[in-house]
Formats: sequence, C-alpha cells, structure tokens
Amino acid sequence: MNNLNNETMSLQQQGIFADRITDVPRSFIREILKVAISPEMISFAGGLPNRELFPVEDLKQAAISIFDKAGKEILQYSNTEGYLPLRELIAERYLLKMGLQISPDNILITSGSQQGLDLLGKIFLNDGEEVILEEPGYLGAIQAFSLFRPKFCPVPLTLEGMDTNILADILKHSKAKLMYTVPEFQNPSGISYTEDTRRKMADLLSGRQLYLVEDNPYVELRFSGNPSNSFYKLLPDQTILLGTFSKTVVPGFRMGWIVAPDHIMDKLIVAKQAADLHTNIFTQQLLYEYLTHYNNDAHIKRICEVYGRQRDSMVDSIKRFFPDGVEYTIPNGGMFLWVILPEGYSSMELFDIAIKQNVAFVPGNPFYTDGKTSYRTLRLNFSCSDEKTIHIGIKRLAEAIVKMKR
Amino acid sequence: MNNLNNETMSLQQQGIFADRITDVPRSFIREILKVAISPEMISFAGGLPNRELFPVEDLKQAAISIFDKAGKEILQYSNTEGYLPLRELIAERYLLKMGLQISPDNILITSGSQQGLDLLGKIFLNDGEEVILEEPGYLGAIQAFSLFRPKFCPVPLTLEGMDTNILADILKHSKAKLMYTVPEFQNPSGISYTEDTRRKMADLLSGRQLYLVEDNPYVELRFSGNPSNSFYKLLPDQTILLGTFSKTVVPGFRMGWIVAPDHIMDKLIVAKQAADLHTNIFTQQLLYEYLTHYNNDAHIKRICEVYGRQRDSMVDSIKRFFPDGVEYTIPNGGMFLWVILPEGYSSMELFDIAIKQNVAFVPGNPFYTDGKTSYRTLRLNFSCSDEKTIHIGIKRLAEAIVKMKR
Repeated sequence: MNNLNNETMSLQQQGIFADRITDVPRSFIREILKVAISPEMISFAGGLPNRELFPVEDLKQAAISIFDKAGKEILQYSNTEGYLPLRELIAERYLLKMGLQISPDNILITSGSQQGLDLLGKIFLNDGEEVILEEPGYLGAIQAFSLFRPKFCPVPLTLEGMDTNILADILKHSKAKLMYTVPEFQNPSGISYTEDTRRKMADLLSGRQLYLVEDNPYVELRFSGNPSNSFYKLLPDQTILLGTFSKTVVPGFRMGWIVAPDHIMDKLIVAKQAADLHTNIFTQQLLYEYLTHYNNDAHIKRICEVYGRQRDSMVDSIKRFFPDGVEYTIPNGGMFLWVILPEGYSSMELFDIAIKQNVAFVPGNPFYTDGKTSYRTLRLNFSCSDEKTIHIGIKRLAEAIVKMKR
Repeated sequence: MNNLNNETMSLQQQGIFADRITDVPRSFIREILKVAISPEMISFAGGLPNRELFPVEDLKQAAISIFDKAGKEILQYSNTEGYLPLRELIAERYLLKMGLQISPDNILITSGSQQGLDLLGKIFLNDGEEVILEEPGYLGAIQAFSLFRPKFCPVPLTLEGMDTNILADILKHSKAKLMYTVPEFQNPSGISYTEDTRRKMADLLSGRQLYLVEDNPYVELRFSGNPSNSFYKLLPDQTILLGTFSKTVVPGFRMGWIVAPDHIMDKLIVAKQAADLHTNIFTQQLLYEYLTHYNNDAHIKRICEVYGRQRDSMVDSIKRFFPDGVEYTIPNGGMFLWVILPEGYSSMELFDIAIKQNVAFVPGNPFYTDGKTSYRTLRLNFSCSDEKTIHIGIKRLAEAIVKMKR
C-alpha cells in the first residue's frame, strides 16, 4: 500500500519532493473504505457519525436566520482566532459540562480537530524529535505528526489507559515536548482512562517541559459509566485540549477547536494564519446560531441513546457468536470497539475472508506507528449500523473467524 | 513587531517550539489593520473584496435549496479531493474562460488558496531549499512558505512582470524546485505579466526540475486591457495553478483550489488529508448550487464595473493631488495599486503622518522577503471604498506626502 502511488513516478520525479512527504502513505483506512462499498457489504470499517441523526431541519432554519440577520457580515474575511461568540460558548460549555475554567482568548477555532493536530505538529516538532503517544493510537494524529518526521514513542494502552510503568520508563530518558492521548472512548480501542491512571500520569508529567494533548472528540457521547477528571484539571499549565463539533452536530462543517496557554496560542495563531487565514466564518456563525437557538443537548442525548443501543447490540452479538478466546472492549461511549483475536490469528487474513462474507472492519495495523506490531487486532465501528444490521454483521464476522480457524 | 509576542515569553518557554515557527512574525498587515479601525479613518490598507456586492440573497436561496435537495448528504464527512461536480465546473470554466484543458482529477479543493500555498510548501520545501518569487510579492505566500524555512530568491518586478534577465542569472546556479507568481493584477503591485515576459520565462524554465505556481485570485476581475496566455498553456507540465472563489463569490466560505499534475496531486492529497481531512462539504455544495443556478457571470461583471470605477477614481485623484515625482501603477484589474515615493522618502514615516490625517495604507516593506528593501513603496487598495471616499482619502494622503516633504 505504501508504494501504491510511487509506482507511477520516476525516481527523478521523486526527487522534487520534500523529505517530509515522501514517507507518508495514503490513509490505509481510506483505501479500505474503497473496498467496502458494495451494497451487500455490512461495514464496521468507517469512523462516521450516523447521518440519520443529523439535525438537518434545525440547521436549515439556522442558516436562513443568519442570512436574514447578518447578511454580508457572515461572508467577508474574518479574524484568525475564530468567531468570538462561538469561542465564548465553547468556554461556557467547558465550565458547565466539565467544570473547567477556560478563557475564550485561549480558544482557537480550527478546520476540524484534524487541523489542530497539524498546527500542533507544525509549532512543536523538529525533525527527529520525540512524540509520546498511546498505542494503538488515532490514525489522524499519526498521519498529521508524521509530516513533521518525529520519532514516535508509543506507550501501550491497558484497559485503564496508558501503561504508566512504561510511560515512567520512557520519561526517564525522553526529551519529548509533546504527548498525545484520547482519554475518553479512545479511537480505536474504545477504552477510557481511569481517574487513577490520569492522576499517576499527571504526577509523572508535572513540571516537565512537556505538553499533553487531550483530544476529546467523543467526550459528550457517553452511554454508561461515570466521567473522570480532564487532564486540564489535573495539569492545567501543561494540557492542550482538542475539541470538535463533528460528533455532536455534523462533521461536514469541519468545525473544531484548540485550547492552549497564551504563549502557545500566539504561535498557533501564526501557524493558522499561514495555513488558511481563518476557518469558514459563515459556518462558524451558522453553528453558533444553531447551538444558541436549537436544542443541541436534546440532540446529543438522542445520539447517545441510539449509539448506546447499537453498542449493546454489538456486544451482545459478539458474546453470542464469537468463538472462545476472542477478547474485546466494552466502551462506555464513543463509536468504536476493539477486538483481539487469539494467538496465531491474523486480522489482515481475516479481512480478506470477511470481505468475501460481506462484512468489513479495520485491521489494527495502521493504529501502530510501526505499522505491524498488531497482527491480531481489529476495530469495529457501531455508530453507523442499526441494531439488526449489527447482529447480522457480527454473525458474518464470527463465521469468518471460524472459517480462518480451519 | 517581530518581537512583540516574544516579550511575554521566557527563554525556556521559547525552547519548546519547532525551529520553523520561531522566526515567523505575526502578519504585519494584521497589526496595521488594528490601527486602522477608527470611524474617521479612510483605509486603503485592507485587501478585502467589497462586501456591498456580496450575493447574499442568491446564496441564501442556494442554501435553502441544498438543504431541501440533499439534506444529510451535505453534512457528512466527505472525500479529500473535494466535491466532484464542483471540480468539474472549475475545469469547464478553465476551458471556457482561459482555453485550458484540465481534468477534474487534477483539481483539489482547498480551504482558500492560502491552504494551497501551505500544502505546496509542505510537499516541496526542505529546510534551506530555494524558492524563487517575484518581489514585491504576496505576503500570504511569503508567510506560508516561511514556515518551511526556505531560502527566498526574489526576482524584482518590472512593469512587464519578472525581470527575465535577473531570473536567467538566478537560474544559472539555482536548484529551486518551486517558483511563485501572481501574473495577473499582482498583489501588491497591480501589474500584469506581458505575453512577451511569459514566453521568455517559459523558455527559461522549460525542461527544468522546477514547478511554476501561477496564483490567479484576481484573473476574472479585469476592467481594461487584454488577457495574456496562462503559463499553463506555455508550460503545461511544469505549471501549478491556484484559484479561489474569494474574489468572485465571497471570501468567508474559504473556497479555493489547486491544479497540479498527477504525481504532485498524489502528494497534495496526502498532505491535505493530514491537514484537515477535507474542505467543508456543506459550503462546497452550497457554492456549486449557487454557481449552477444563479448568475455568477453577471455578478462578476458588476464587481468589475464597480472596482473599475473605483480604480479610475483613485488614478484620477492621484494625478490631481500627488506631488510630482511620485510614481504609480495603473492596473487593468484586481484590487491594488502600487506607489513609489521619490528618492529620500520613507513610506513607514509617511504611514505615521497619514494615520494622523485619517488615511491608512500598507507600507511596502512586508512584501519584500528581507522586510526592508523597499523604504519608499506603498500598496493602496481600491476595492473597498466608493469613488467619493477614494477622492477624499487620496487628497489626505497627498497632503501627508507634502507634509513629510517639509
């Protein structure tokens, strides 16, 4: 897959590119999703929110309102930081929902939280510098950081979060300035960091020249269990938060944000300005109108109900159909669940068999920075299929596992 | 200005950042615009399209239509390349308006053409590698490329375009892989490259391992004169085109595009995916709906009429009020005009005097990569002030020039 694009290119043509781009493969998942498009296919491979739940009518009314109210104002060039009322609203929600005191001056609106990752990579990472991240880890972060050619220092995930013993060992010698986590309903594993793990990590990190990125796209999609403290509460001066409206409103708007201390915000603004001047101001204001005049909380509650039922369906079907020895996580929220096949199995081989059974998933490999550590893990998405479809799809997948066994 | 943000930062804090971000100052123009906000101020400093001309009602109707027609489809995650019908329409317009044969597969939708610059810098520029660019040059390009720490090789502009003798000299020794131009109604100078200059440049560049970026944000805003051939016609295999809807529809949408050969497009897509996954698909489809169901050509004609009259007003007022010895360009389109003060004058000093007379402009310095070459040039914007205001503003500026003289 790595060499797919290069085959059409002469060596001479290769030489024109910057070193940073020559090693970065196209998204593995992107390529996999191309396979998974037949109408018969049940796909657990995607990472999409369920489009059936999008608040189309509310957004339409909000769009009409802002055209009528603000007209030209919403269509001109705007400031790099982002629409101030939207940043104020994000700050209010942090206080209300997570008890965090954050100034709107420390919030930068980005073109999705993916852009936040790009900007952080840009301002923090020199060639060859270390980045600590959880493993398996979010593919978008691995991709974004890869462009700045860091040395990845992966810390294995346990069911409680990062393995703090391994983290402690790494920190003894590491000069990493940046560390990346998705502590709630992690992508791809579905696990959440326990309060105990967070506190141990905060103790280990406190006072170091190191910033912890807490990427929390799914934090509002909780179906069960209780929240732990944000790292921002435990380690306020060293935590950078990433957030997004992609999972709670719609992803097509590409609306995310970064929260960072003043001196980092200054650099992020310079990088953001060079990257795209500012984020679409029309959509920022449309989003603000929607959030302030329509019931987003009720909408999020509905998402949680539906995804919660779909998670139950997936977990129940796994219990019923999967052969003994297959392990899996039971997430309290988010969109993904993680499966570990018994010793000796290969999830890449399973993928080929499963596709023939008309069921798709993402093999675990791309979530590891060396691209090969995990030959027997896979990610299953439960947000995009209804309960009945999940039941059928998991049954097919179970049959594929059994088939591989023979 | 360069050190403004750093004063609040300890040396220790500085050490955490990547080298690429530590040298990049905040936008000079951004800081200047903050000065120019008093209600009495007549500002020729901005670079904004005239908001009075935005097609607000048409865009509102287009928004309602796409919500009704496509609903959920316009709100989900989408592909990195961009909305195919929009790319097909851009290809059609290239054929119709400039006689260029371009495949939609070679068009990538970006978050404004500024993002195009960032992506090109990312995929082409290693630390210290050369970039050839016109001088004075577009500030956004200088900023975007600066982050990748190239060596800038500026080529002075004449009234006919790049000085081809100097370019020929530079090319004798240069290993530059990238070259940047705004050949039509250039920002900041307002000049257009002649057909002769373009052909000489194409001859010089042909067959080299070098890509010429033709950034054409203003190409459709012509009031007078005749167009020359795009470099894409003269040097098809080595030309990368940048385009935008910011000047012909609205800038707030942040909708631009890149046209590039296949093997470069592959790398751009990887970089775009890491940067923000894809551009806002809702606004892409809204823009497509507007372009296909409303009369954008009539709208552009109206912009050209208004800007053309405003350019006339500015040129007439300059002729009438400016003291002898001041030189200026007479652009055939776009939004800017360039002034060269007589020997011994300083445009930075003039700025301080002019602000007290309630008229603002951008001194030429930031458009030079060394930030100081031009002590006696300035950029004037004519798109955002009506004819009467331009008349008054130029009169004030003339008085400021005379005042400085004494």
